[in-house]
Amino acid sequence: MKLIQSSHNPTYRELLRLSQGKGDDGQVLLEGIHLCQEWLRHRGQPELVVFDAERLEQLPELQALCDGLAGVPMLAFAPPLVKSLAQVKAPQGVFFRVSVQAPVVPESLVSNSLWLDRIQDPGNMGTLLRTAAAAGVQEVYASQGCADAWSPKVLRAAQGAHFALHVFEKTDLKALCSRLQVPLLATSLEHATSLYDAALPSACAWVFGNEGQGVHADLLSRADRRVFIPQAAGVESLNVTVAAGICLFEQKRQNG
Amino acid sequence: MKLIQSSHNPTYRELLRLSQGKGDDGQVLLEGIHLCQEWLRHRGQPELVVFDAERLEQLPELQALCDGLAGVPMLAFAPPLVKSLAQVKAPQGVFFRVSVQAPVVPESLVSNSLWLDRIQDPGNMGTLLRTAAAAGVQEVYASQGCADAWSPKVLRAAQGAHFALHVFEKTDLKALCSRLQVPLLATSLEHATSLYDAALPSACAWVFGNEGQGVHADLLSRADRRVFIPQAAGVESLNVTVAAGICLFEQKRQNG
Repeated sequence: MKLIQSSHNPTYRELLRLSQGKGDDGQVLLEGIHLCQEWLRHRGQPELVVFDAERLEQLPELQALCDGLAGVPMLAFAPPLVKSLAQVKAPQGVFFRVSVQAPVVPESLVSNSLWLDRIQDPGNMGTLLRTAAAAGVQEVYASQGCADAWSPKVLRAAQGAHFALHVFEKTDLKALCSRLQVPLLATSLEHATSLYDAALPSACAWVFGNEGQGVHADLLSRADRRVFIPQAAGVESLNVTVAAGICLFEQKRQNG
Repeated sequence: MKLIQSSHNPTYRELLRLSQGKGDDGQVLLEGIHLCQEWLRHRGQPELVVFDAERLEQLPELQALCDGLAGVPMLAFAPPLVKSLAQVKAPQGVFFRVSVQAPVVPESLVSNSLWLDRIQDPGNMGTLLRTAAAAGVQEVYASQGCADAWSPKVLRAAQGAHFALHVFEKTDLKALCSRLQVPLLATSLEHATSLYDAALPSACAWVFGNEGQGVHADLLSRADRRVFIPQAAGVESLNVTVAAGICLFEQKRQNG
């Protein structure tokens, strides 16, 4: 395995750019054993693997990962290069470069889906993807103004959920309504019925909105149903990821 | 209102220390309009208010807050001092110094409570407090190894939930079991029944564990019941805050 030590190495420079977010051609840098293993499980082999030269010698877990990657181009990076690529304080010493292509929006939406309207916080964005995957929702439509789904922080919070989902970014959610063959449900405190009194459909589009402002009025006005989660009086409303989890799993419970 | 411009000012120095976490005497620095308003609503007046001298002139919202604080000691800080105190990129220009005392652990635990076992991430810690408050759970017991509940990041994620709760920190959860008059429930993937098949008690202690390792085996072995949230196959488990939200609100639903 070739050892790269120079910070002028062109591959290192390219990966350094990708460590800040998805490249123009859909190239993404995945960091850490768990994310890499999830990629292998869901999407197959990466385009390139980079190991921390020192850690590869020391950690049996990295060695096992390496042994399973016969045929994949591999590089060993000197620890200082790994440190500058890493997005966490204690890097595990492995990166995959992979390519992701934007999925094509279906002509008509018939499956359960999650719509995200200007979710700003990368941690929330990732946790919403993770929650969707756990609830068995496979399509996620994110509006302009959402955190970049393939950025390192979102990837970290989602723990590999991306790879089991179709994530549509920069979607015009208002325009998407015309393709909907299932009801659009939104959480709202006004003109809404309790989540537990609503007979929830087995398939629908759930829309959750910006952390401060909620779902945009234009979109809210198109919702077929508005529901609220009954909460204790006089306290702050739920974080959007928790609210989404409660709704998606209540739907799952009702529909067995 | 006195204007402070020097970074050698002793009050500024003290607040700078508090901006990193709770002081030895339980003094806490709250930042931002929302947190300060929530403090006023739940706990009454602060010990000291600090405004950004420039923003106070410009923002009617700060002026309104100021007008409601007659009798409270107030200082105006020059913008550079505010910037160095602030934990967010766009500070709103108001801080409260308040005191919080550790609540006394009851002799016997009869209410619904949330137990947190080594929750490391401050964002998760804060969101768990926010979720507890929204679900009407008023007692939260955090073990040694949890993120400091009164640190700035936790305060920000909880959005004021702290002030509606009794938060017990550095609790020996194993020892606390002997005070329990209600069942202890834990989420677990092994030897567990579905959350939806379990008749959930109206009051219990819910324990949620470390992001990577879950609930400590010693504590898990003392649980009266273990439940799991049925999830889609082959994907990552839920984030701990979302799991807690689903459990607490399912309990609320079942018990009307």
